[in-house]
Amino acid sequence: MAKAFQDYYPDSYRHCYGCGPDNDHGLQIKSYWDGDESIAKFQPKEFHLAFPGYVYGGLIASIIDCHSTGTAAAAAYRQEQRELGSAPHFRFVTAALHVDYLRPTPLGPSLELRSRVTEIKKRKVVIETDLIVDGVVTAKGKVVAVQIPEDLVPDKP
Amino acid sequence: MAKAFQDYYPDSYRHCYGCGPDNDHGLQIKSYWDGDESIAKFQPKEFHLAFPGYVYGGLIASIIDCHSTGTAAAAAYRQEQRELGSAPHFRFVTAALHVDYLRPTPLGPSLELRSRVTEIKKRKVVIETDLIVDGVVTAKGKVVAVQIPEDLVPDKP
Repeated sequence: MAKAFQDYYPDSYRHCYGCGPDNDHGLQIKSYWDGDESIAKFQPKEFHLAFPGYVYGGLIASIIDCHSTGTAAAAAYRQEQRELGSAPHFRFVTAALHVDYLRPTPLGPSLELRSRVTEIKKRKVVIETDLIVDGVVTAKGKVVAVQIPEDLVPDKP
Repeated sequence: MAKAFQDYYPDSYRHCYGCGPDNDHGLQIKSYWDGDESIAKFQPKEFHLAFPGYVYGGLIASIIDCHSTGTAAAAAYRQEQRELGSAPHFRFVTAALHVDYLRPTPLGPSLELRSRVTEIKKRKVVIETDLIVDGVVTAKGKVVAVQIPEDLVPDKP
């Protein structure tokens, strides 16, 4: 299995509740390129419900959020034609998150996130995402990701 | 202690990961009126981090989401001058969620959500929220909540 974007995160990012490989309580989402799109799959637990039979909307927002910031970093590396994880590290945080819930998302099947980079500048990347379940788009996300302010980086390279 | 909005939820809503009183794995947020505003307080766990020292953005989105749908239901009851929990039940779901992360939210102190109902129609309520930590607004949320479609209600009155 190829390494995910998140597997290249430096120490300070590895504890994120949504995507940190080292957060045992967290969601540990994993994102990959699929051509020009990025994808992630996520299997909700039975307790990730809004009401019986349907996935909790906050979980959907959370996985869109983390998949998008991971994609932003990967896109920044790709634009510089650098290997993921090479220094200096790209690390993005969310400035704005928007989710449109088009229809209830059934709880049970694996969720697929499929994202496109719709804008990329030096410190800002915009990511648009479809949440797909059994071939149906149930939610759409848009994240404005910005590079983490230097004074917040715990482990500068 | 007064009962929270969520304590009046009918059975089908009591398992929500964000606000269901009966979801042992969930966040169990509790919302109350404070004059024309609704408030909720939430204490993140130490593992609800984005990176060391700061709260995970997906958690912020989640608690804004649930506090807003709870506020939407309470506002609908209030508009009809009915008691919370009286039948027929008002139950709202999120059509759209937007969060602007203004600055990183420190992990440690209790988070305060403070919301205003900015639009209320028969089946649609718009809620705007400030997330406040130690007197500082670190994020702003806007939720468009709509009454749950009848065909999704598991336990019709």
